[in-house]
Order: sequence, then C-alpha cells, then structure tokens
Amino acid sequence: MLGVEQDDIWNRNLVSKTILVTGAAGFIGRHVAAAYAMRGMRVVGIGRGDLIDWAQYGLSEWHRVEITLENLTKYAGTPDVIVHCAGGSSVGISMQQPYLDFIQTAQSMAQVLEFMRLYAPQAKLIYPSSAAVYGQTAHLPISENEPLRPISPYGVYKKIAEDLCRLYSEQYNISIAIIRLFSIYGPGLRKQLLWDACLKFSTGERKFFGTGSEIRDWLHVNDVVELIIVAAAHASSKCPVVNGGMGVGITVRDILMQLSACFEQAKKLEFSGKSRAGDPIGYQADISLAQSWGWEPQIDLGKGLNDYAKWFKRIET
Amino acid sequence: MLGVEQDDIWNRNLVSKTILVTGAAGFIGRHVAAAYAMRGMRVVGIGRGDLIDWAQYGLSEWHRVEITLENLTKYAGTPDVIVHCAGGSSVGISMQQPYLDFIQTAQSMAQVLEFMRLYAPQAKLIYPSSAAVYGQTAHLPISENEPLRPISPYGVYKKIAEDLCRLYSEQYNISIAIIRLFSIYGPGLRKQLLWDACLKFSTGERKFFGTGSEIRDWLHVNDVVELIIVAAAHASSKCPVVNGGMGVGITVRDILMQLSACFEQAKKLEFSGKSRAGDPIGYQADISLAQSWGWEPQIDLGKGLNDYAKWFKRIET
Repeated sequence: MLGVEQDDIWNRNLVSKTILVTGAAGFIGRHVAAAYAMRGMRVVGIGRGDLIDWAQYGLSEWHRVEITLENLTKYAGTPDVIVHCAGGSSVGISMQQPYLDFIQTAQSMAQVLEFMRLYAPQAKLIYPSSAAVYGQTAHLPISENEPLRPISPYGVYKKIAEDLCRLYSEQYNISIAIIRLFSIYGPGLRKQLLWDACLKFSTGERKFFGTGSEIRDWLHVNDVVELIIVAAAHASSKCPVVNGGMGVGITVRDILMQLSACFEQAKKLEFSGKSRAGDPIGYQADISLAQSWGWEPQIDLGKGLNDYAKWFKRIET
Repeated sequence: MLGVEQDDIWNRNLVSKTILVTGAAGFIGRHVAAAYAMRGMRVVGIGRGDLIDWAQYGLSEWHRVEITLENLTKYAGTPDVIVHCAGGSSVGISMQQPYLDFIQTAQSMAQVLEFMRLYAPQAKLIYPSSAAVYGQTAHLPISENEPLRPISPYGVYKKIAEDLCRLYSEQYNISIAIIRLFSIYGPGLRKQLLWDACLKFSTGERKFFGTGSEIRDWLHVNDVVELIIVAAAHASSKCPVVNGGMGVGITVRDILMQLSACFEQAKKLEFSGKSRAGDPIGYQADISLAQSWGWEPQIDLGKGLNDYAKWFKRIET
C-alpha cells in the first residue's frame, strides 16, 4: 500500500486528469463530480438519472444514457479515474424488483470492467460498494475481513459487483479500490431515514418504522468524497477494500432525537417495533484500514445533522 | 431432504410434467432432453445453439433464441421443471471474452430466476454448475462445504449464478438444486481433453498440453442425467448443492493412456510440462451427498471411454 506521502504526490498530479463518474446524477455521484472539478480536473458524467443543471456540479460533459459497454465506448473517452457510482440504491426496491437491481448493479459493473479491459486498462476504478455486503454480522465494529453474508438482493448484487472487480483485477491487471460505505448522508440526499425524518418532523409526525435500537454508522458525504479521492491513489490489481464510516455506532433513536432537535421543540419519538426485511440490526465500521491511508472523517455528526436540517429547510421553503 | 422412497414417488409422477431445458442444443442439454422425453415427459428446448435435428432429442418444441426474460416469457410456457443447461462452457473462451461469458452464465441465470419469480414460482430449477467454482482446493476429495475460490472467469460466473440461485430461493421461495459437475464426457462431446485426444490419436499425434499429472474426476453424461432427474425431487428453497462426479481422481496421463488403447497400438504420450492458466491441478469429488439421495454412478470409466472412442470413430468415418 502507498503511504500518505505517495498519496499526496498522486493527488497533486490529478489536475491534468480526466475523471469519469457513472451515476453522476445520484446523491454521491454529484458530490464526487463537484469535488474533483473543484480540484481542477475534467469530469465527465454518465448515467440514467435526470440532471438538468449538470454544469453546476462541475461536469464538463453529461451523457444521460444507460451504463452499457456501447455507451461507455461512445461517451467515456479514456479516463484516468472511473468512479462507478451508478447502481441500485435501495434495499426496498431491490426486493420488489430484483432483476432491475441486478441490471443496475451487477450488469453495469460487468460493462464498466469490460470497457476498462478493452479501452482503458490503465485507468483506476473506485467502486463505492455498501456495508450491505456484510449482512448480519456476529460482532461490531465490522472489519473488512468479516465473512460476507448479504441478506437482501441489494447486498447480494453489491457483493457480485465486488466479485467482478476482484476477477478483473486478478485476471486483467485492472487497478481497483473498493469502499464499503455505511450510512451516508448530507445535502442533496432525498431518500432514506434522515430524509423521511425531516419530512415527518416538518409536519409534526413522530412515528417511525423499526425498533429504534438498530445501530448505524453515519458518514457525511463530504468525508465519502475525500475517501474516494484518497482511494484512487491506492487502487491496484490487488483490489484493496476499505470500510467507509465514522467508526461510530449510533442507534436510530439517538440520531433521530438529535435531528428532531433541529426542528422546533423536541417531542417523544414512536417506533413500530417491527424490523424491516433486509435490514440488519447492527452496523458499525472498523475504519482503521482507511485511516492507515491517511484519511480521517472530518465532519462531526452533530454539525453534519444541523447542516442537513438547514439544507432541508431551505429547499422546502 | 427427501429420502429415496419419496424421490421415487416424485419421479413416478413425472409423466404428466413439462420440462424446460435451456441450452438444449449443448452437450449436456441434448442428453437431458432425450432422457426426460424417454420417460414420457413433454420437453421444451430453448437456446442459442444450432439444433437442426431437434425432434431426435425428444424435444416437443425447440426455440432457437437467446435466454432472455422476454424470450422465456414468450416460449417457456409454465414448466414444472427447468434444467438450466445454457451458459458459458469453456474456461479458455471465458478468459478471452469474459463479458460474453458473464452474459451467457450470470445474466442468463438472472433472467431464468426472474422468469420463475414472475411466471413459474412453483417450478423446480436444476442448475448444472461446475466444480470450477472451487478453484484450487487444499485437499481431495472436495466436499460441497469447501470454500469457493474460483480462478477463472468461467468459475467466477458459475459462482455468481449459484449466488443468484441462493438469493431467489431464500427471498422468493423458489425451489432449486445445484449440481457441481466435475469432468463430464460421453457421446456428443466435441470439445475438451478427450475430444482433442481422439482427434490426435486418430492421426498419430501424441503431444499434450500440461504435465499429465493433473487429477480429474470423470463422470459419464448418462450418470449426469440420472443425477439431474434425482435432484429435481430434492430441489427446495434451501437450495441444496451436490457434487456430480465418480468420486474417483485419475491423472490426465492415465486417462489418456486408457483412451489411446482404443486407437491402434499404444504409443508413449508427450506432455508440454506447462500448466494452462485457469486450470486447477486437482479435482476429485466427494459424492457422499449425492449418494445419500439414492444416486450412484453406473458407468465404469473403462467402458465409458471405449464407448466414447467407438462413437468418435463412427462420426469420423
């Protein structure tokens, strides 16, 4: 592995580079595109999402097309770094429409890798995978060596995408780094627990699904972006895998209490008591490997939640 | 698991059933179709291969199309049993054209499973997987619990197909049985070691790739077909996995010596001494689980090789 110094050298040379962001219309993709553009790189976006104001995210080009080998060949050019953010993004949808999720996650990864093998073998691939590949683990925090036993189609397809990465790195010498993201939040996130909670808090609703005692590890999207940029310096044919989290487990009840304090007076939260299928009880990342790369989460959860609530209120009015 | 008696009952009721064989133009697919037809069942074949004389294999229908969800919906009807023989069939081709192999093996499985979830949830799926999912193992014989560390795209995609089977059996209650086939041979096989050897022996050529000391476990295709029929009675949402082999390891040198004796006078064999990428050194199946289902290989290797050489000579003249 590269040390922190080598990482700096690699990143200093980024200015002359072209970055391809798949799924650039998505929550993480938009932040990744903006962060690379801010560092002076040329960023090309491709994906199926709707992104009318794409220049505002720093994209030099935006191609609203499916991630297929044909479209990548047509639009991707010869990128130096590919951040493959495209893919299924909901456990619930993956259970209702498993084949769609297979196409979006496993099939799109197979095509990105084949594109690299044929046309961009020198590029580095960063894959934001998911902690969902772990499934229910025996203990917390979860290290990268934990056995992978995903319990939802979403998690299985992310694991398959990781298997494909390892195959191409071993067989075809493609440089890859995989980041298993835990619970990601930040401005622009319009789904999942914190978004639903903001909607509820803004209308006085206090009822939530689950028991409230589920443990999650929340990482701000700005910290995710920094980890992705650091990871590009460590991508190799050994296909390293790191966890991306704060390294802190917090119950759903506690984080909702913190968030609710940003909305008028705090009230008692209510939980259904029923667990949702496909949702593991506990997630907390062991982030020592990512830290050994010189990365450290910077955004305190309290400040991050406050900023998120502010962003929510701004777009709501 | 069902015992032998229940297995008999299930098989006795097969006469009224419809069997869908994907990849029915392939080596194993043709034998599977013929065997089910001989037992009085209606057999529908679908696949990309060329099968002009399809009625001779007992097929009631043959649809020469790709295995896609759309084509399955159009042509498959509502089968009672699906034997998914379609898929990549060569380690070498999988290394040269990995994305093609992904489509043929992983993608086609995803579509068969989605077809079952949507339109044939009561059907039983039998998947002839491959011992290639094991990769290089620490010891022989190999039991089904051995960790899976495939070393070729072919093996990785078979493993992904198995992962998809487990996902659909767990999440959607689809009844599946997986058979990990070792080295399969028999009349109709026009590729791989024994076919190449027949071609060489018939022209006096004696040179082979590899060291000759690689160990393989050879099973006659008729025994494969019997195992597939038995497995249908054991398919369940627990997705059992069994090895399909003779349970006997034999070196490449020894089996080629046996086969060469079927061609004029035996001569000394020569080996290149180089191992082929993607080929593990040793394969020998632990078949105790398949035996516990009441199945037993019937065809002696000596007799099987003799019959294969006879078939080869007949089609060559």
